Amino acid sequence: MKYIKQSFEQLTIAYQLIRWTVIIIPVALITGTLVALFLWLLDLVTVWRWEQGWLLYLLPLAGIIIYLLYRELGKNTEGGNNLIMDEIHQPGGGVPARMAPLVLGTTIITHLFGGSAGREGTAVQIGGSMANMLGRWMKLSPADTRILLMTGIAAGFGAVFGTPVAGTVFALEVLAIGTIRYDALVPCLIAAVFADIVCSAWGIHHTHYQILFKDKDLLNFTLLTKVILAGVGFGLAGFLFSICMHTIKKQAKQWIKPAWLIPVTGGVMIIIGCWLLGTRDYIGLGVTSLSPGSVSIVNAFKQGAISDWSWLWKLLFTAVTLGMGFKGGEVTPLFFIGATLGHTLAVLLGAPVDLFAGLGFIAVFAGATNTPLACTLMGAELFGTTHVLYFAVACFTAYYFSGHAGIYSAQRIAVSKKY
Amino acid sequence: MKYIKQSFEQLTIAYQLIRWTVIIIPVALITGTLVALFLWLLDLVTVWRWEQGWLLYLLPLAGIIIYLLYRELGKNTEGGNNLIMDEIHQPGGGVPARMAPLVLGTTIITHLFGGSAGREGTAVQIGGSMANMLGRWMKLSPADTRILLMTGIAAGFGAVFGTPVAGTVFALEVLAIGTIRYDALVPCLIAAVFADIVCSAWGIHHTHYQILFKDKDLLNFTLLTKVILAGVGFGLAGFLFSICMHTIKKQAKQWIKPAWLIPVTGGVMIIIGCWLLGTRDYIGLGVTSLSPGSVSIVNAFKQGAISDWSWLWKLLFTAVTLGMGFKGGEVTPLFFIGATLGHTLAVLLGAPVDLFAGLGFIAVFAGATNTPLACTLMGAELFGTTHVLYFAVACFTAYYFSGHAGIYSAQRIAVSKKY
Repeated sequence: MKYIKQSFEQLTIAYQLIRWTVIIIPVALITGTLVALFLWLLDLVTVWRWEQGWLLYLLPLAGIIIYLLYRELGKNTEGGNNLIMDEIHQPGGGVPARMAPLVLGTTIITHLFGGSAGREGTAVQIGGSMANMLGRWMKLSPADTRILLMTGIAAGFGAVFGTPVAGTVFALEVLAIGTIRYDALVPCLIAAVFADIVCSAWGIHHTHYQILFKDKDLLNFTLLTKVILAGVGFGLAGFLFSICMHTIKKQAKQWIKPAWLIPVTGGVMIIIGCWLLGTRDYIGLGVTSLSPGSVSIVNAFKQGAISDWSWLWKLLFTAVTLGMGFKGGEVTPLFFIGATLGHTLAVLLGAPVDLFAGLGFIAVFAGATNTPLACTLMGAELFGTTHVLYFAVACFTAYYFSGHAGIYSAQRIAVSKKY
Repeated sequence: MKYIKQSFEQLTIAYQLIRWTVIIIPVALITGTLVALFLWLLDLVTVWRWEQGWLLYLLPLAGIIIYLLYRELGKNTEGGNNLIMDEIHQPGGGVPARMAPLVLGTTIITHLFGGSAGREGTAVQIGGSMANMLGRWMKLSPADTRILLMTGIAAGFGAVFGTPVAGTVFALEVLAIGTIRYDALVPCLIAAVFADIVCSAWGIHHTHYQILFKDKDLLNFTLLTKVILAGVGFGLAGFLFSICMHTIKKQAKQWIKPAWLIPVTGGVMIIIGCWLLGTRDYIGLGVTSLSPGSVSIVNAFKQGAISDWSWLWKLLFTAVTLGMGFKGGEVTPLFFIGATLGHTLAVLLGAPVDLFAGLGFIAVFAGATNTPLACTLMGAELFGTTHVLYFAVACFTAYYFSGHAGIYSAQRIAVSKKY
């Protein structure tokens, strides 16, 4: 009898699956499309900025515009990713639909005028706010809306990087440090896969990274030790990024008044930074670059080009950009910081540059956001699995050594890293 | 000040890491060595059984010997994996050290005389009992012993299949349905990696499986639909395996008395099954086979050889073997069931046979043990990542459709699959 009763569970589960697929398709469709639009615009403004060097000098002005846009139209959307995470933890006022166009527009402005920022925050906010809007239209219960918000995160993340599996696990893993709950596992996967398909269908291509290094042995003890040491470094870099960003944000709010002066100061600091370093390699997205000898994520996988402190400069430029009112994600800069730090550590430790750039790429992100499993899977999705063990070792070590700070203040601590 | 205090966390965390590495090294050393011994013996007796066909007829007698060994020497070790999981959930009397030699010996006996069983249960019990013994010697606190037990699971699993990342996540994921807690993440990874290194250092090689299929498109919608359909099938197969095993165990206990008659009956049923089907392909481990045309896991990745109901026969043979008192793991038979079912479904759906054999290999296991993330990572470790998305889709779908039964009765339900 017990087993007969249990086998009816499968029918309930099948019904759930179909119901959620129907609910999720519009979320994935809208999110995938908006992310495709976003990535297309991002490419466009990045090329513009390369061609029109003077745009950088308008960055302080762009900061004022972003400030005004959020003050006049923003309502509570300033909270960004944290607002979405708070809504998932504790449903409240919902995530306003205006978040999507606002964050999309202001991120594009940030990139056009040379702020150092990323994409994932924007994509996640697009996904989250669209999910919330559709949930309201479909009159879903608070419990269902909560799951729908998580699928929005998965859809945004999966589409923006072309990594649906990592997007799924990220949406589940990012909410709390030290634990994953599987309640939204399958809905998130559906959303991430569909959104990725939609985004690709619009003709968006993702950058390919290549780790050519192949080890003779399946497991090389010396290399493993180097990966652990690098993992500690990646974790500390993630930690440093979090505290820099939080500190800059807090201090700016306290000392710079009126508030519109904050982004102006930030913009001026970026301009001065470029002038002091004599390069513009650290502004913008940083995935590729105009000249082949520049510092960029793609070049971090090759010999040369990267200087010893590239990672630190990118860290500071990004902390200033995002801590002082500009918009965009943290993740692509974290990739940049990680890949260049990995490059530097590889040279220092006598390890393969491409492998360590790849490890840093995922591990600094794993440390700063406390999502080691998502990042291990991302490594597998982006770089292939020959090195999946090293991916896990680097990400888990970095997770362990990044402390409890993290870039998302709405992330809760479920299981401490100290025991 | 907050950040200065936080940066001292990293020192605590570094100390923890070093402390755990020191504690774990002996666990990994002993577990890796015993698993190597176990795998070496397993190969030996499998070849013996192939050569000496009459050994099968002694299976009922072997059943009595196993029964007597556990009655006289077993204490509470009969509980096997469930005992270890119970100890982790709720520390009690501990896991006796005798579990390791007992389960090792009786698994070898089971395989020598032709029971259909696996390896993982044995390896996990070796790891768990050795971890408990060393924890007692080192006078660890109950909280530390709990973590050490988890590292024992990770070490056993990682070493026996040569998949340390999957072993790590399995140890964290198997304890409760629907959730992962990261408290033992890094200790488990250290244990799994070291145990795998030790096991390989003893000259143990793991079988290589190859998925040669490569898709032109990055994401093929038709193929994705087929993978989802197959995933439902894999989940139901995992569910069927769980209920068959539980039912056989329960009914045998109720109807067959005295207790030593249970394994005798089981042994006789296996012999009759072989005679009825006219093949011995479904007994033993089933990874490889003597003749190239036999049904085996390796052959499931190739055209031909597999019949439509191979998966069901292996399911029944294994449920009888393990449900009626023989020893060994469930996982290799689950690989067999999955790979052959995948093969059959591929032919049915017009999909690539090697890919679907690989998907079944990991997904039936994911469904029956409720460990979708570990199995996705296992796919990446065993088959390479060109297809990591399909691995995730198959495992998550199978997880979803296997209900709440599962092969481990000590597994708790933390988050229901119905919501």
